[in-house]
Amino acid sequence: MPIDTTIVGKKLESSTAQWGEKDVMLYALGVGETSLPFAYEQDLKVLPTFAVIPAFGAMFTMGAAMQVNPMMVVHGEQRIELVGPIPTRGKVTNQPTVVAVYDKIKGAVVVVDVESRDEKGTLVFKNTFTTFARGEGGFGGDRGPSGAKNVPPDRKPDAVVEMPTEEWQALLYRLSGDMNPLHADPQMAALGGYSKPILHGLCTFGHVGRAVLHTYCGSDPTRMKDFEVRFSGEVYPGETIVTEMWKESPTRIVVQAKTKERGTVVLSNAAATIAP
Amino acid sequence: MPIDTTIVGKKLESSTAQWGEKDVMLYALGVGETSLPFAYEQDLKVLPTFAVIPAFGAMFTMGAAMQVNPMMVVHGEQRIELVGPIPTRGKVTNQPTVVAVYDKIKGAVVVVDVESRDEKGTLVFKNTFTTFARGEGGFGGDRGPSGAKNVPPDRKPDAVVEMPTEEWQALLYRLSGDMNPLHADPQMAALGGYSKPILHGLCTFGHVGRAVLHTYCGSDPTRMKDFEVRFSGEVYPGETIVTEMWKESPTRIVVQAKTKERGTVVLSNAAATIAP
Repeated sequence: MPIDTTIVGKKLESSTAQWGEKDVMLYALGVGETSLPFAYEQDLKVLPTFAVIPAFGAMFTMGAAMQVNPMMVVHGEQRIELVGPIPTRGKVTNQPTVVAVYDKIKGAVVVVDVESRDEKGTLVFKNTFTTFARGEGGFGGDRGPSGAKNVPPDRKPDAVVEMPTEEWQALLYRLSGDMNPLHADPQMAALGGYSKPILHGLCTFGHVGRAVLHTYCGSDPTRMKDFEVRFSGEVYPGETIVTEMWKESPTRIVVQAKTKERGTVVLSNAAATIAP
Repeated sequence: MPIDTTIVGKKLESSTAQWGEKDVMLYALGVGETSLPFAYEQDLKVLPTFAVIPAFGAMFTMGAAMQVNPMMVVHGEQRIELVGPIPTRGKVTNQPTVVAVYDKIKGAVVVVDVESRDEKGTLVFKNTFTTFARGEGGFGGDRGPSGAKNVPPDRKPDAVVEMPTEEWQALLYRLSGDMNPLHADPQMAALGGYSKPILHGLCTFGHVGRAVLHTYCGSDPTRMKDFEVRFSGEVYPGETIVTEMWKESPTRIVVQAKTKERGTVVLSNAAATIAP
């Protein structure tokens, strides 16, 4: 069945999500943040990248609404936009809207914005999920923007941060909500074409977000305004994530991440906007 | 106010607790068990020592009923008795009964049995919490049994298992329910007389239970029938727990645990009954 492009611009079914301090702390540990300000309830701060957690279910809403096979969907890019500090307890309504469908011939790129608003209707954060639906291309649609964004400048990084992960990092991260067995079960990983279970892309995203937060935001979550990445390669739990950062202006950090063990680029075309 | 000994033999207020697979997996990771049978939902098994989690609140029920200052209570000993495999999802009613109060002059020892029964009234597991209430002794009561039990024989252990812990092990374990800041907050630890936050005794208990399970029960939770320990010393997160075991009969394992770094005995007078 061809992908339904008439849905572009329309709102999809909304959903609600809520969280508390325990969820915030579990998420922090899941992305390797073990410092007390983020992992202990007194004066608890919320990592900016936590924004993906309450909105995560919208990826499935999108898949169901557009009738794409979820096994064929790959998470391509992620962007978060913060309004203020994420509260340690919250309840939001997530409103997904399909903002674009691009025809990449071998598949379709689907871009979904998800606005998460509190009970007063105030925007708490916004996610943009970009997914690649394999086998759904060739419908004669717009090819979408070309050219790479957030390309690192031709010089050594201004800062490099290494973060080891645990062999069981994915087993911990998945308790924050993404229970896809691809990240736990060797048989499911093999079906997906991997030699063993891989770390969640959003777990890598969380690690790399921490690198930016601690290096350029003085560990203050309110100084991270947005953060966007492309998922370029997989991390195996136990590998060390190496984040390279270039400060392109007082407010703009271009980012790239590799695995230390294999040198593979795992997050590319990434950047954060920060408060100087 | 002197401790109220008239309560011995009486049932205290019951409470309910429920859990699901996520709780079971979070607990496993919290006590260092990262293998898939215990940390992934497919064919999930429950560690026998998980039995303490649903019943844990009864320690506070006891403290409140007997009007002892919770800051003065030290967890002295723990025993669990298993009936069958613990289900991966469950709901139980915990019925605490004070079975003894002993006068140790410097304090009182309070022994509470907690039976946890499912909705049909079937016993799922039983806990015995033995606590030491500092400053509550000298009321002229029974001194209680003397003499040490579960003393290791005078020979080298039959098996020794080393388990490293993470520097942030307590931050993870506490998400299973015991949020006492003593295990996270350096200031609270200092108030308790410790140089830094200590690992939960029951987290050490979980590690040592795993050592028995994997060494003498073929990793099969149904083969552990009971397990009892005395909390003799503290473990600092990041230390390695060394469990020494003596097989005294086909069904009885005497156990002791130390820290590798300091050699301090942390669990003593411990034993497990196993199915041969």
